[in-house]
Amino acid sequence: MRVRKKPWAEAEVSENPYIIKDPKSLKGKWREFFGNDNPIFLEIGCGKGRFIDQNAENFPDSNFIGLERQITVIASAARRISSEKKNLALVFSGAEELAELFCPGELSGIYINFCDPWPKKKWEKRRLTHRNFLNVYKDALSESGGIFFKTDNQTLFEFSISEFSNCGFKLKNISLNLHESDFKGNIMTEYEEKFSSKNNPIYRLEAWA
Amino acid sequence: MRVRKKPWAEAEVSENPYIIKDPKSLKGKWREFFGNDNPIFLEIGCGKGRFIDQNAENFPDSNFIGLERQITVIASAARRISSEKKNLALVFSGAEELAELFCPGELSGIYINFCDPWPKKKWEKRRLTHRNFLNVYKDALSESGGIFFKTDNQTLFEFSISEFSNCGFKLKNISLNLHESDFKGNIMTEYEEKFSSKNNPIYRLEAWA
Repeated sequence: MRVRKKPWAEAEVSENPYIIKDPKSLKGKWREFFGNDNPIFLEIGCGKGRFIDQNAENFPDSNFIGLERQITVIASAARRISSEKKNLALVFSGAEELAELFCPGELSGIYINFCDPWPKKKWEKRRLTHRNFLNVYKDALSESGGIFFKTDNQTLFEFSISEFSNCGFKLKNISLNLHESDFKGNIMTEYEEKFSSKNNPIYRLEAWA
Repeated sequence: MRVRKKPWAEAEVSENPYIIKDPKSLKGKWREFFGNDNPIFLEIGCGKGRFIDQNAENFPDSNFIGLERQITVIASAARRISSEKKNLALVFSGAEELAELFCPGELSGIYINFCDPWPKKKWEKRRLTHRNFLNVYKDALSESGGIFFKTDNQTLFEFSISEFSNCGFKLKNISLNLHESDFKGNIMTEYEEKFSSKNNPIYRLEAWA
């Protein structure tokens, strides 16, 4: 979703305490930043933040970082955080900077929810589940770490299964219709709630390193 | 599909030239049997044979073997072979005997089409895409060999993706709706034609060793 740049967003990004000012300086020091040894989970493209905020609420013994590259979107996310939380941080950046943000093994899990499907073949490399990205994610994940991927885009899901398996990930808990599956504890994104009311299937998988 | 045993079937199985009489004696000698070095493809559970027969017709430079464990079904398959073919054989046996039928690397490809989904969790090990079977298939396949899997059963497909990736197969050309995909050259089984007229999706994947 492209959102028009708004003047208030820049101020929000520089002032809101949840948005980390110099995130690259925390590479390898995120545990220190959170002040504990709890596992750290990253959402790539956290949008307006509902998913990551709800996770931080539900799982106080884990730390959560939301990555978002659109300034007005991350500003909205920061504004809507539902209550004070010490286990949540937002980073104004994109997936291509992951290696500069995290040391090998620093993350326990990565969430990718409803990313841009980049439908044309010539755009394949921009998809967040392209093997070039997956190899970067793999480096940042701990040995027992996993990637949790949801989409409503059939072609992207087909492509992603192939990319994950070609990068040596083990796939588990695959759902071709998440909302009608046995899966417990699904936390919906803003987009997911809106989209699923149209009764189209949501696809989900877990990929383990 | 369970079919009542019919008296004519036993006669057909012992007399029809397409049904191999002592298939285990051909282990490691299938190239010799076909009289050439062409690649050999196996369909596990060939049913009434339409798929394997059509493949043998379309690809004269490959050899095809249909495996079927139900006597009346294989007898029907043998009867319906559409024209004389030197690149087609039928074997009255089941997947659990694969290691006794083929040497390591003897097969270039394995087809599994609309196998029994064995829907209950306690029956998982009977599914033809359970890892115990996949490891046997992997042994029989050449290094560049692949498995081509189709089903209309969503749960079986979800399970199978997971099993293939956990056995180290690389998944390619995944279709979550085969008949509406770009896939060219699909050969339908009897079941597939009947089922797809109901407009439900057919799932397909390729798994490479």
